Amino acid sequence: ENRARLLINCPDQPGIVAAVSQFLSEHNANIIESNQYSTNPKGGEFFIRIEFEMPDLKEKKTDLEAGFESIKEQFEMEATFKYVDQIKKMAIFVSKEPHCLLELLWEWQSGDLMADISLVISNHETSREFVESLGIPYYYIPANKDIRKEVEQKQIELIKQYDVDFIVLARYMQILTPNFVETFKNRIINIHHSFLPAFIGAKPYERAYNRGVKLIGATSHYVTNDLDEGPIIEQDISRVDHRDNAEAMKKIGQSVERSVLARAVKWQLEDRIIVYGNKTIVF
Amino acid sequence: ENRARLLINCPDQPGIVAAVSQFLSEHNANIIESNQYSTNPKGGEFFIRIEFEMPDLKEKKTDLEAGFESIKEQFEMEATFKYVDQIKKMAIFVSKEPHCLLELLWEWQSGDLMADISLVISNHETSREFVESLGIPYYYIPANKDIRKEVEQKQIELIKQYDVDFIVLARYMQILTPNFVETFKNRIINIHHSFLPAFIGAKPYERAYNRGVKLIGATSHYVTNDLDEGPIIEQDISRVDHRDNAEAMKKIGQSVERSVLARAVKWQLEDRIIVYGNKTIVF
Amino acid sequence: ENRARLLINCPDQPGIVAAVSQFLSEHNANIIESNQYSTNPKGGEFFIRIEFEMPDLKEKKTDLEAGFESIKEQFEMEATFKYVDQIKKMAIFVSKEPHCLLELLWEWQSGDLMADISLVISNHETSREFVESLGIPYYYIPANKDIRKEVEQKQIELIKQYDVDFIVLARYMQILTPNFVETFKNRIINIHHSFLPAFIGAKPYERAYNRGVKLIGATSHYVTNDLDEGPIIEQDISRVDHRDNAEAMKKIGQSVERSVLARAVKWQLEDRIIVYGNKTIVF
Amino acid sequence: ENRARLLINCPDQPGIVAAVSQFLSEHNANIIESNQYSTNPKGGEFFIRIEFEMPDLKEKKTDLEAGFESIKEQFEMEATFKYVDQIKKMAIFVSKEPHCLLELLWEWQSGDLMADISLVISNHETSREFVESLGIPYYYIPANKDIRKEVEQKQIELIKQYDVDFIVLARYMQILTPNFVETFKNRIINIHHSFLPAFIGAKPYERAYNRGVKLIGATSHYVTNDLDEGPIIEQDISRVDHRDNAEAMKKIGQSVERSVLARAVKWQLEDRIIVYGNKTIVF
Repeated sequence: ENRARLLINCPDQPGIVAAVSQFLSEHNANIIESNQYSTNPKGGEFFIRIEFEMPDLKEKKTDLEAGFESIKEQFEMEATFKYVDQIKKMAIFVSKEPHCLLELLWEWQSGDLMADISLVISNHETSREFVESLGIPYYYIPANKDIRKEVEQKQIELIKQYDVDFIVLARYMQILTPNFVETFKNRIINIHHSFLPAFIGAKPYERAYNRGVKLIGATSHYVTNDLDEGPIIEQDISRVDHRDNAEAMKKIGQSVERSVLARAVKWQLEDRIIVYGNKTIVF
Repeated sequence: ENRARLLINCPDQPGIVAAVSQFLSEHNANIIESNQYSTNPKGGEFFIRIEFEMPDLKEKKTDLEAGFESIKEQFEMEATFKYVDQIKKMAIFVSKEPHCLLELLWEWQSGDLMADISLVISNHETSREFVESLGIPYYYIPANKDIRKEVEQKQIELIKQYDVDFIVLARYMQILTPNFVETFKNRIINIHHSFLPAFIGAKPYERAYNRGVKLIGATSHYVTNDLDEGPIIEQDISRVDHRDNAEAMKKIGQSVERSVLARAVKWQLEDRIIVYGNKTIVF
Repeated sequence: ENRARLLINCPDQPGIVAAVSQFLSEHNANIIESNQYSTNPKGGEFFIRIEFEMPDLKEKKTDLEAGFESIKEQFEMEATFKYVDQIKKMAIFVSKEPHCLLELLWEWQSGDLMADISLVISNHETSREFVESLGIPYYYIPANKDIRKEVEQKQIELIKQYDVDFIVLARYMQILTPNFVETFKNRIINIHHSFLPAFIGAKPYERAYNRGVKLIGATSHYVTNDLDEGPIIEQDISRVDHRDNAEAMKKIGQSVERSVLARAVKWQLEDRIIVYGNKTIVF
Repeated sequence: ENRARLLINCPDQPGIVAAVSQFLSEHNANIIESNQYSTNPKGGEFFIRIEFEMPDLKEKKTDLEAGFESIKEQFEMEATFKYVDQIKKMAIFVSKEPHCLLELLWEWQSGDLMADISLVISNHETSREFVESLGIPYYYIPANKDIRKEVEQKQIELIKQYDVDFIVLARYMQILTPNFVETFKNRIINIHHSFLPAFIGAKPYERAYNRGVKLIGATSHYVTNDLDEGPIIEQDISRVDHRDNAEAMKKIGQSVERSVLARAVKWQLEDRIIVYGNKTIVF
């Protein structure tokens, strides 16, 4: 593929789009899709995602990035080129409940997730058979809060060994240490089984049931050290009523969790998400 | 109209439906619609709403209710007969923003709310002209937290004078005292401009914006003394994205508030809601 | 399990609920859930679904059904008792695209579909491996319009051999003959990949794309001899926009198809659907 | 306001964005928002909408447009500059049912529709009082198919007299002649009370009820000479069930019609819609 994506954020000012598109045009790039957003045209932050095609992109990557340095400096940009032919590698962490893992594996099998699923790490053996049947390595690392450091040490080694780009917590019911989170900043995607910020923390379906809500939700977000407070990528909900007890809500919610997480991962793979402060821009 | 509704809750046990339907059958009632629910068939609470028609219902009301007393005692029921020909009287409280008031007036004008809107009470003059043009009395009672008692005294007098059945807070931005709430227990319906229990309290759209949520919501609930903690009647949401600032979220949210409140009021008028503990059964 | 469901439809008249609930009460049945509907209290058709528990139900089935005969005659009812301990047997027909089959297998594995999946029949070998890995027999029967009769003969034999209760067409892209449809009247559930009655027939996503719709849908319905005209069980939609071509719509739509079909099958298993004319009552 | 929007479509080729943004940059324009889409980067059609601010825009309009001519020619563009300070003028056509008219008037009153509502034309007197109370001229022109030409002649005169930019058919239940449609090509927005292409033509709620659908919808589209076949701008749906008869569906549907039409009109006012063939690009 000769396709790439350029993600930029910088202080807003006139001339950014002109400079960037001029640069791409001079390099024979054809812009396929472009999205931009500014928090405020006067003194705000500017964001743009440009997807483009360029003949012989593979050989020209170094030149392209080198040539872009001066624009980057001029506008004080954070800018990254992402190349579609560099398939991203992901690790999936899972505990006992397999529904989110299965959804990802399934979409991956049917060609909807353009990624390498490098490995699955779990504190249970539950999903080993199915994962291995797809030719994906499965690592069982028992975990609890007393051995958190040792567990994470093993996880980090595996992730480095497999050269993983990002981690998906597909209902991994363990809290991560600040060290782990820092090591993979903005590279850990979690699915929380509530409509955040409602029901932060444990047992959201039980609490939703006790509160008597009429809708339940799920939230996919990047993990930070503040529990369930990281930048939200996607949310969705489903309707419930008085007949649904906590168990029924959980069943209904699992379907929402699956689709919300799958969308977030897909956007991650398509380089559609820019994290800014505690929010996401999803182009 | 010869139509009535019977609302019951009592400890669940075999024979309730048989006894009640036998009773209605003996009184020549034809059951039009019936909904029931039990928290647990063994030792739980049982709820039923029966809508029925009975010839010459008007003359038979007293006999009917008297006759039902023995069943009521036998099963330790809370039971109420509601007659469709007794049009309910509602008071609407509103502050400056008129969108929820307008929605209710509009649905009322087009015949979708079978109620008398007896009066509108506001701490602003904003909506006087339109309300009075519909022939509805409008009372301006300035309010703030220092004069809460006096204000509520006037409100209570008006509500008694108009013999109001229930009160709708259509974005009335004043906190009510425990005394007021107690006086109209389970008879005050509020609309809160968030997806409760997220963003309890003031300025939910600003906080939703700051949190970076991808959906915003509205919640209609009965008012209790715990702020925004009363039994939820209905909730709904609308999608937002990074381009929507707090002001845009507010505009989008107003549309959700309107429809959520209108549905809650409609169900109240149709006697579809049973409050049980801190939850609602909506039949 | 001592649980059963009673499904009734008959001409509406006073006294039905009383007679039925009296009968159940006399047989020591405790009504767990009950839903009813009437097309018109005066001269319309009445529908009721009652779920109940009864001690020693297993031994009493014959007595129960015999005893109910007189009520059945009195009110000219169509009435069926369904027993929860009699697990339903289903056959799944599938062509090449496996997403609907996978969804059903998955929900079945996770205990959400209380059924025996007796066999899978396909005109392709695509899904054999996965189906057989779950211990479910897989029959490959090549099909095209010239050999329709022979194909259906084999299918009917298999279905009789396995004593199947109902058939799910999980994207089985072959038209069935009137003979086949008649043999399994109201016992074949199909998923159509459009929001019926829009885009009846072939290639709905291509046609949706060409029409420029902003929502795409899926419809689950019982199969009749009028193509895509059978009683609708469930429908749902998903939003699309100008960027989505027919291929993208297909991907988005598959997710809708999966959940719509899964819901329809679940309701079928819970005996929640009554077919009346060309419509369904879903309790 | 110094704000404008530039809408372009042309054959896709490399360099378009560079040329346009370079041009705007040289004219000291700051791009606020930009959206683009291409049916196919190789030989497809390219679309872009750019919203920008430029100091002293008012005096520079002529220069700006003249200067853009060479780019327009080079890329064979259809291109239009739209200026935010030129408030658009709209005419609303309505028959008896006022809900869509009321929604538009209401959003206009609350400042959500940046437009002049120049006049309302109706074949009924129903809404005169309310419309005139807002200071908007109301013209009663009785209509039926025998006098279609004379009626349209009067309507065209009024529209020209008021210099109207576009027409909204807010449930105007009369068919327009090809002559009328041609006169206001892509400038007449209709709301159809079904999820098109389902239930084209008359009485969609009755037909939806008879078909037993589980969702009903509404569609806003530009009017062409093929009944209900024009480019779709927006669609939405609401859930119904077996209890909802045609009348109930109509009530539920009116709420969908209101919001779908209001969104379409808002996008029209913000110059977000480009018509291409029989489809719309909505940026």
